[in-house]
Amino acid sequence: MSRASTALEPSAREPATPLYVRVARTFESQIENGSLKPGDRLPSVRELSRRLGISVSTAVAAFAWLERHGAIHARPKSGHYVSAAYPPTAAPRARRECPPSPSRVALADIVVDIHQAAHRPGMARFGNAVIAPELLPEGRLNRSVRLAAAAFPRHATTYESPAGNPRLRRQISRLAYRLACNIAPDEVIVTCGATEALNLGIRAVASPGDVVAVESPGCFEMLQALESCGMKALEIPARPRDGMDLDVLDSAIRRHAVKSILMTANCHNPLGYVLPDGVKADVVALARRHRIPIVEDDAFGDLAFAEHRPRPLKSFDTDGNVLYCASFSHLLAPGLHIGWVHAGRFHKRVEALKSITTLATATLPQLALAEFLESGGYERHLRKLTGTLLRNIRLLGASVARHFPVGTRATYPDGGYVLWVQLPRGIKGFDLYSAALEHRIGILPGILFSPSRRFRDCVGILCGAPWTEDSERAIATLGRLAGQQT
Amino acid sequence: MSRASTALEPSAREPATPLYVRVARTFESQIENGSLKPGDRLPSVRELSRRLGISVSTAVAAFAWLERHGAIHARPKSGHYVSAAYPPTAAPRARRECPPSPSRVALADIVVDIHQAAHRPGMARFGNAVIAPELLPEGRLNRSVRLAAAAFPRHATTYESPAGNPRLRRQISRLAYRLACNIAPDEVIVTCGATEALNLGIRAVASPGDVVAVESPGCFEMLQALESCGMKALEIPARPRDGMDLDVLDSAIRRHAVKSILMTANCHNPLGYVLPDGVKADVVALARRHRIPIVEDDAFGDLAFAEHRPRPLKSFDTDGNVLYCASFSHLLAPGLHIGWVHAGRFHKRVEALKSITTLATATLPQLALAEFLESGGYERHLRKLTGTLLRNIRLLGASVARHFPVGTRATYPDGGYVLWVQLPRGIKGFDLYSAALEHRIGILPGILFSPSRRFRDCVGILCGAPWTEDSERAIATLGRLAGQQT
Repeated sequence: MSRASTALEPSAREPATPLYVRVARTFESQIENGSLKPGDRLPSVRELSRRLGISVSTAVAAFAWLERHGAIHARPKSGHYVSAAYPPTAAPRARRECPPSPSRVALADIVVDIHQAAHRPGMARFGNAVIAPELLPEGRLNRSVRLAAAAFPRHATTYESPAGNPRLRRQISRLAYRLACNIAPDEVIVTCGATEALNLGIRAVASPGDVVAVESPGCFEMLQALESCGMKALEIPARPRDGMDLDVLDSAIRRHAVKSILMTANCHNPLGYVLPDGVKADVVALARRHRIPIVEDDAFGDLAFAEHRPRPLKSFDTDGNVLYCASFSHLLAPGLHIGWVHAGRFHKRVEALKSITTLATATLPQLALAEFLESGGYERHLRKLTGTLLRNIRLLGASVARHFPVGTRATYPDGGYVLWVQLPRGIKGFDLYSAALEHRIGILPGILFSPSRRFRDCVGILCGAPWTEDSERAIATLGRLAGQQT
Repeated sequence: MSRASTALEPSAREPATPLYVRVARTFESQIENGSLKPGDRLPSVRELSRRLGISVSTAVAAFAWLERHGAIHARPKSGHYVSAAYPPTAAPRARRECPPSPSRVALADIVVDIHQAAHRPGMARFGNAVIAPELLPEGRLNRSVRLAAAAFPRHATTYESPAGNPRLRRQISRLAYRLACNIAPDEVIVTCGATEALNLGIRAVASPGDVVAVESPGCFEMLQALESCGMKALEIPARPRDGMDLDVLDSAIRRHAVKSILMTANCHNPLGYVLPDGVKADVVALARRHRIPIVEDDAFGDLAFAEHRPRPLKSFDTDGNVLYCASFSHLLAPGLHIGWVHAGRFHKRVEALKSITTLATATLPQLALAEFLESGGYERHLRKLTGTLLRNIRLLGASVARHFPVGTRATYPDGGYVLWVQLPRGIKGFDLYSAALEHRIGILPGILFSPSRRFRDCVGILCGAPWTEDSERAIATLGRLAGQQT
């Protein structure tokens, strides 16, 4: 078993963003800054090709990208037009930041309160990091559970090994082609969801008191994992489109004894971006140069709206320096609660930690998931789900644009179901969160996404449930409440 | 919800060991030191009552205790006789110890190796801390899984709350009468087995670098939990019969900044004792006096050979100072892998840690266990299981006595399935462990049970599987190998 190399093409340095995406983004910024307005007609494919000196197929791909992102729509025999709902709002402003310094995390109490609030009956759940059961393949999952239980009558009376069930590890290995990675079954360690995967990953590479670089804003589950281990977070500003500022990261590493980098390259929570492959390669190279392991959170990577599943950082890793953490929990089967780690050169340490902290993952959930993956419906499910989530997030964005006060800005996610909203000056995200609770609407206050409680003017609005008239009404209420906070 | 009090009779201080046990133990030591030999006749009940000035019923109870422990047997119309198999060996010697000092734990690597060795095919599994599936109610568990899956079709697609499924928490609360405790459903936090329960408990009361008092020898899962959190273990010598030396504990607390006491009062692993209620009350009082929380490992408490389920330390706790950790994993359903914590005044902290480290326990295993407990067969299962384990451990003890070199000593457990064997001078437990591996026999080296790697002359032999002729042969081989080590 080789732990050193997992990238399929270890030597291939990806070019930066593909040409068609760069072309598409030019239009996107014109739409964002208002030089193209809803209803405006775009040049024809031929015209565009001639004007920019690009191939027709590149022009077609650029328009397809814009259509997929809901920015434009085609009218038969007429051409492409800017869609009405685009952009819902301007993107959150980039921030001027002081050089980062490490800080202790203390989010546990507020997170428990939010969890409990989210589970109150009758809540409009825009603060729940879950996908609604009706969007998950309940019938097929239950069938897999029944088949697995019947095929392995000893499932209840035997422990799994700490690293996990061999059948499931084989299936995860089989699906690794989607990640452009080559992962052997015995390189997979099965965990109790992504949360345990991240905890084990972090604890394998850093100790209490150590400094870990994180995106700011960043996924609060990862921040909490740091908190629970007594580690310090070094917040590196993440830009709404292209993530962590690598220059800031590089100079921060030179100034602080950074032990690890926690990073989400795909469907970032909360900013929603998918990093271009060029940036991914740069990050992995930077970490390798500094000999600092990366713990990669790719739990949402399968939720990208792109045609092809985006590559993880892991696929650029040639020396086992990336600990890859993923999960089937959020996006397929929360109740089975299965995640996994491919820990590269830290495999043995993660396996030992797993055996020490939870011994093993429950048996039947592993067998049932293996059965489900063997039967081959996973990718079909993802296509359906990401279609729904893309629609949801666009409807949510449009609704925020309609109802929130002038000056509100929001992201335009490449995947996932989190909309990151920056409120106009003077409105506090936590006040809006509290006011919304009174109206039985759950959202997430921005301070959750930063150990030093930045992003006081932001909220996260999640849309993992089917969009209904009630959703629209709840966002209207939120907008009204936001207006009252000034 | 009151977290302060869980003892049913908070004011009742138990007397020390009951009189009949003390009487029985007098005979036991006479058997152990050879003044009573196999085949010797004991005095009659009447004679004993007159000679010691005790009631006839106390004398009857003493003989019943000795019979239950396999020390004596009754012949109709003739009286009570010392059994042939008793004692298998003398008890391990009490040790002269230096005053304890805290040490870092570093057992992770060796434990992973032992785990892997234990799972090799064809191994005689005297080193596996598992109860064989054939001793567990497989059919009834599978039925519970089927019923639960059918009754809750959303089990796969919904997360449980971090604290656990309400139905299961109700069942655990209902069964708390067996612990002489009064535990409300919302005081229960469901975990991924006892391992997670202990980890959460320890992390709730102590931080990296802190000193935690532990029994020596002690359960290596608990020691590993300390290791993984970077805490230091302060080894308090535990005596084969009555556990931690409370005087040593008391003075150690005065000298070191002890943050918590980790303790197993029932069916201690590896020594097998159940502490007398008086000692339990003393420990809880001592901890309360010093304001140091106790993390209690009661995962084996249901495996006691006594008529009544022994009380946990928790039942003597009046101010929420004991974090009670238990499990249905080992002794009922390893594959469901469910444990729980009652964390007293640390409830909120443990709940937050649970949500941070594994978010939630898988849903169907919780529903299935709730279904099983509701259907009422748990106590019947325990009666059957402890009967088998008692037979096993006595047969194992007798076999060790027959085959091991002269001078070997062993415990006489009050519960569980671990025999702690002290080898004659010059024989190293680790050498025997290694030699046994070559012969495909798994046992546990004594150094596993101590952070400072004491107990080099000891091994743990586990008998959670049905006793067969192969078992007898394996122990004979072990004895021969031990003889060759001198």
